[in-house]
Amino acid sequence: MSYLEKITSPTLLLNEKICRNNLKNMASKAHKQGKELVPHFKTAQSQQVGEWAKEYGIKEITVSSIRMASYFCGQGWENIHIAFPFNPLESGTLNNLAKNQALSVQLINEAVTEKLVDALEHPVGFFIEIDAGYGRTGVEVSDFGLMESIFRIAKKTDKLRFKGFYIHPGHTYYTVDKHKIYEESIAALSMLKNKYSTEYPNLITRVGDTPGCAVVDDFGDVDQIGPGNFVFYDMMQVNLGSCQKEDVAVALAVPVVDIKKHRNEILIHGGGVHLAKDVLAEPDGSKNFGEIVYLDKDGWKMTGQRSYVKSISQEHGLIQASDELLSKVKVGDLIGILPIHSCMTADCMKSYMTLDGKWVDHTEGA
Amino acid sequence: MSYLEKITSPTLLLNEKICRNNLKNMASKAHKQGKELVPHFKTAQSQQVGEWAKEYGIKEITVSSIRMASYFCGQGWENIHIAFPFNPLESGTLNNLAKNQALSVQLINEAVTEKLVDALEHPVGFFIEIDAGYGRTGVEVSDFGLMESIFRIAKKTDKLRFKGFYIHPGHTYYTVDKHKIYEESIAALSMLKNKYSTEYPNLITRVGDTPGCAVVDDFGDVDQIGPGNFVFYDMMQVNLGSCQKEDVAVALAVPVVDIKKHRNEILIHGGGVHLAKDVLAEPDGSKNFGEIVYLDKDGWKMTGQRSYVKSISQEHGLIQASDELLSKVKVGDLIGILPIHSCMTADCMKSYMTLDGKWVDHTEGA
Repeated sequence: MSYLEKITSPTLLLNEKICRNNLKNMASKAHKQGKELVPHFKTAQSQQVGEWAKEYGIKEITVSSIRMASYFCGQGWENIHIAFPFNPLESGTLNNLAKNQALSVQLINEAVTEKLVDALEHPVGFFIEIDAGYGRTGVEVSDFGLMESIFRIAKKTDKLRFKGFYIHPGHTYYTVDKHKIYEESIAALSMLKNKYSTEYPNLITRVGDTPGCAVVDDFGDVDQIGPGNFVFYDMMQVNLGSCQKEDVAVALAVPVVDIKKHRNEILIHGGGVHLAKDVLAEPDGSKNFGEIVYLDKDGWKMTGQRSYVKSISQEHGLIQASDELLSKVKVGDLIGILPIHSCMTADCMKSYMTLDGKWVDHTEGA
Repeated sequence: MSYLEKITSPTLLLNEKICRNNLKNMASKAHKQGKELVPHFKTAQSQQVGEWAKEYGIKEITVSSIRMASYFCGQGWENIHIAFPFNPLESGTLNNLAKNQALSVQLINEAVTEKLVDALEHPVGFFIEIDAGYGRTGVEVSDFGLMESIFRIAKKTDKLRFKGFYIHPGHTYYTVDKHKIYEESIAALSMLKNKYSTEYPNLITRVGDTPGCAVVDDFGDVDQIGPGNFVFYDMMQVNLGSCQKEDVAVALAVPVVDIKKHRNEILIHGGGVHLAKDVLAEPDGSKNFGEIVYLDKDGWKMTGQRSYVKSISQEHGLIQASDELLSKVKVGDLIGILPIHSCMTADCMKSYMTLDGKWVDHTEGA
């Protein structure tokens, strides 16, 4: 029985082979340069995908919330890093988790460091997040006063241990020259390592985001890379040049409920609660909420003529359909959608089905 | 103990009093005109909110998926309408639910009607959805050939029973003159009722969406109104003129994790996986992912100077903070966000906390 026969409503398909290949390629790229790959698991959010990752030498992971950290505790990870400015209201949960799991948090200000010093009951590592131009979060790269203030406060307890500096250069998503951004990020981390390595000889530097890690070949003296999205990739990454469509490891299977041939439109059950609302712009300015692929018993195949989801509401998706698609699809069929932003689609869908019809876990569905 | 003391991570607050008031006002508006209010529960997706609705005379509800219908079965609803073009892959589930619950589906083409005629084991009602200009889904208002073809096919079984015509005039979201759209929708429904009432004397007409139902006062000879979002409202509806900020019944409580005074920025744990990514444009062209309110033990209060979420990623939210907000808020505090699109935020959050600290259910968290 094909996996397709099990599907009656929107279902997120996971191609294990492509996913393993993405893990293997990024681990191999890191390894060749003597770097460690510490993938960000905000994308897959899956213990099963974690097990696959271990087969490619991955020993530590990153997550973006304490809830996600909790989901991965006790699974044999040497360390779980919570790459989000620590929320002091969650000190109690952190203490509970840190009893039995090596964890690190991210610190960017004095106030939270103070609160953590007072609250910690078990050893926890910390990274200082550096803002190297993205502007979302982090200590400005030249603000040594703030860094040293964080160090000074952290020293009030032996439970808070400095691990190193972390940069998420998210502006690679909006900037053509990703190499230049990485040169700056790597230079910033190198400078900080030189400046503080006498006091902290084991300090680690980590840089990571998929658009950069996918195209950059020289990570300088950075110790670790930490991309996340590469585990699945998506149409945003195809658009950014990080990968090919064939590298996208997830597709949303959706039922076709109506076809309007004269308007080249196909209506599907598949909307914002399934795909999320991330969007790309087509060359003609229209919106693209996902790229259509054909489903068959072996998985999905690229179309000849392109079709894409041109509008979505809560549950509805409307496809701008090519003549080729219209000639192949009928009401009651399932078709596939490569998502624009796989992290968000996975978070909406809360589980995956593999091509042999098995369910794979996700934090949100657990 | 205040509800606030129970919150350590992003939590969707539900003000029962405002929600009940919204239900009461819309039910009263319908009642005064001799119409029935059949609210769309895609917004609240909550059995508890359903119980509140019953207190204002609501006897039937609408949902947007069979999964949601399943969640509301057996709760005493006289009918549950699934306002989505029926997906024939779900005929088995429909048969299971229709054993013990009065249900109606939406039909817009011959192919699905044929499949349903073959599959149905228990009586189910159907509405024909009419497209009165929105262009998302439905039979074109003048396509009597298609309507009559659906009637003819449906008559092959005594289990598929025509209930009436349904219009969702969703273009009210994008058009200033909502009255004109409603005039057209009401005229279309009136024409169809006249045309087919000899053959179907009990046929019902229903029109519904919040921007229209909130501002239109004359629904003509339409039998039922079916808005959904009004149960909670949101900033999109404030922007459209459907309600005031004070009518918004949900607010996302989020922890403050960093403050950059010199940039007028506050960083919160609250991103796309919590709020969803619906967005409004500020007058200066910048994006607004949610409006800031102050939280206290009694709920939320409007700010004097406005502040709003100017950017979000998966878990991060960055607030464009007024001087007033900066003067009142510190790291470790909770602040509130009125969502742009409450249906999507509720679907992300999967549950609600009332202001007396009790949890309220949502389909996705069940």
